[in-house]
Amino acid sequence: MRSWTFAKGHGTLNDFVLLVDRHGLLDPDEDDVRWLCDRRAGIGGDGLLRAVKAEHVPSWEGDGSLWFMDYRNADGSVAEMCGNGIRVFARHLLDSGLADGPEVQVATRSGLRTVAAQPDGRLRVSMGPVRTTPDAVQVSAPVAGERRSWPATAVDVGNPHAVVLLGAPATPDVLDALDLSAAPSWVPADHFPSGVNVEFVTVLGERHLRMRVHERGSGETLSCGTGTVAVAAAHAARVGAGSGTWRVDVRGGTVEVELADGEAWMTGPAELVAHGEVVLPDRRTAA
Amino acid sequence: MRSWTFAKGHGTLNDFVLLVDRHGLLDPDEDDVRWLCDRRAGIGGDGLLRAVKAEHVPSWEGDGSLWFMDYRNADGSVAEMCGNGIRVFARHLLDSGLADGPEVQVATRSGLRTVAAQPDGRLRVSMGPVRTTPDAVQVSAPVAGERRSWPATAVDVGNPHAVVLLGAPATPDVLDALDLSAAPSWVPADHFPSGVNVEFVTVLGERHLRMRVHERGSGETLSCGTGTVAVAAAHAARVGAGSGTWRVDVRGGTVEVELADGEAWMTGPAELVAHGEVVLPDRRTAA
Repeated sequence: MRSWTFAKGHGTLNDFVLLVDRHGLLDPDEDDVRWLCDRRAGIGGDGLLRAVKAEHVPSWEGDGSLWFMDYRNADGSVAEMCGNGIRVFARHLLDSGLADGPEVQVATRSGLRTVAAQPDGRLRVSMGPVRTTPDAVQVSAPVAGERRSWPATAVDVGNPHAVVLLGAPATPDVLDALDLSAAPSWVPADHFPSGVNVEFVTVLGERHLRMRVHERGSGETLSCGTGTVAVAAAHAARVGAGSGTWRVDVRGGTVEVELADGEAWMTGPAELVAHGEVVLPDRRTAA
Repeated sequence: MRSWTFAKGHGTLNDFVLLVDRHGLLDPDEDDVRWLCDRRAGIGGDGLLRAVKAEHVPSWEGDGSLWFMDYRNADGSVAEMCGNGIRVFARHLLDSGLADGPEVQVATRSGLRTVAAQPDGRLRVSMGPVRTTPDAVQVSAPVAGERRSWPATAVDVGNPHAVVLLGAPATPDVLDALDLSAAPSWVPADHFPSGVNVEFVTVLGERHLRMRVHERGSGETLSCGTGTVAVAAAHAARVGAGSGTWRVDVRGGTVEVELADGEAWMTGPAELVAHGEVVLPDRRTAA
């Protein structure tokens, strides 16, 4: 019987199962990840965050004493980085006394990230370089039964985004009327050969945006950390602002995005909800 | 800060958050229940099962030393009984040493129920009286884009059901092709003034049924305990069998239903997945 200690938490309702596995002994396989993230049969989450000392991660070439964030999607696949997940990850390390704050260095598959606990309880994450290409594609999606089309800014935040800036809120609001039950399409179709995350943005104030997002492979989600960075960067490019701080409202909450010198930082909440013991089902095949 | 001990478990993927509250001190309000059952912000479940000694339940007039199952739906509303939930409830009491087995008497808002642990690990629940009325209504729902209509048996298992017996599996299978994304309709419309749970059933063998269910207020679910009893009773009435044991496959697993003398028993699995501590958010208004 495998009984593992777990925690559950979320950042703007992007939610995770957390495992602390200092010595790299747990080794969850794809079935384990799917089961842990299953919202009925297991614990439930958008993904699994496993904390393991980097020295036990063969692909990591940096400081082995850091904590490595082994992030897996709910479908069991390996993922590189997650802007909401890393805040929850760092909050758990800090709350458990496994890392000293206020600043935590985290090793990820996208390289080193810094997470800094803020006096107000939020966490600020270095998101790395951001690159924008205005009017790179034309995106289309249904609005109240009619297919509409907009120019979109391509944004590279380590993963690809297409951002549609809708402008100020209209009546009735296009953002609310959008149908994101299917993936938006784009032309030229070969611009994002591996798919793209698509954000639609209403401008609520000078640096205050509201967005909805369709994530490739997941559908519409309540939050997307790299997506919030992408919409701030697309808006910055549109208004010719090289740096500054944007407030970005997602369906699951609010984050702040800072841009400076082509790099981004995201500040947002992280909530740890529960801690416990979970008993995993037996593996299908003997080890 | 309110930190509560919880468990999470499921019966045929109908899942629950469990609280043991021997002295009736926790008193979760509707917001607490909704939060605990929220699959992203909280723990997640179809409902909450609170175990409290019956002496602390003013409406209970029987033995006060029994455990009372305070069942709440995920939306915070109070519910009477849940055939899948009570198995998980009893499994938790037995595993925690809070009740002696193999038979546990449970006080519910529907009266006294008996849950008996079986040698194979499943639990057998007394489901009380069942009453069937063949051809009581005509039910209709879309199948592959075309609206179809069938006679249905009304079944009262404490709550109301309408059971459509589709017969042996067809090719392509009607049961799989059914669209239950919206509630089926029925005529006469005033037959179920408070709504009805609708089951569709394929007959796989003499006493082997497969069903899908649309629960009023919840949509299509993976399992419905009283629904499995209803389909066995409807099939029994159709074939003129007064008693016997039926195997009923639901999307989330398999249960057995016994019928005898107008009463029913259901036997099925109950899995406890996790135990832990959960920190509830502060109440919106001070007590």
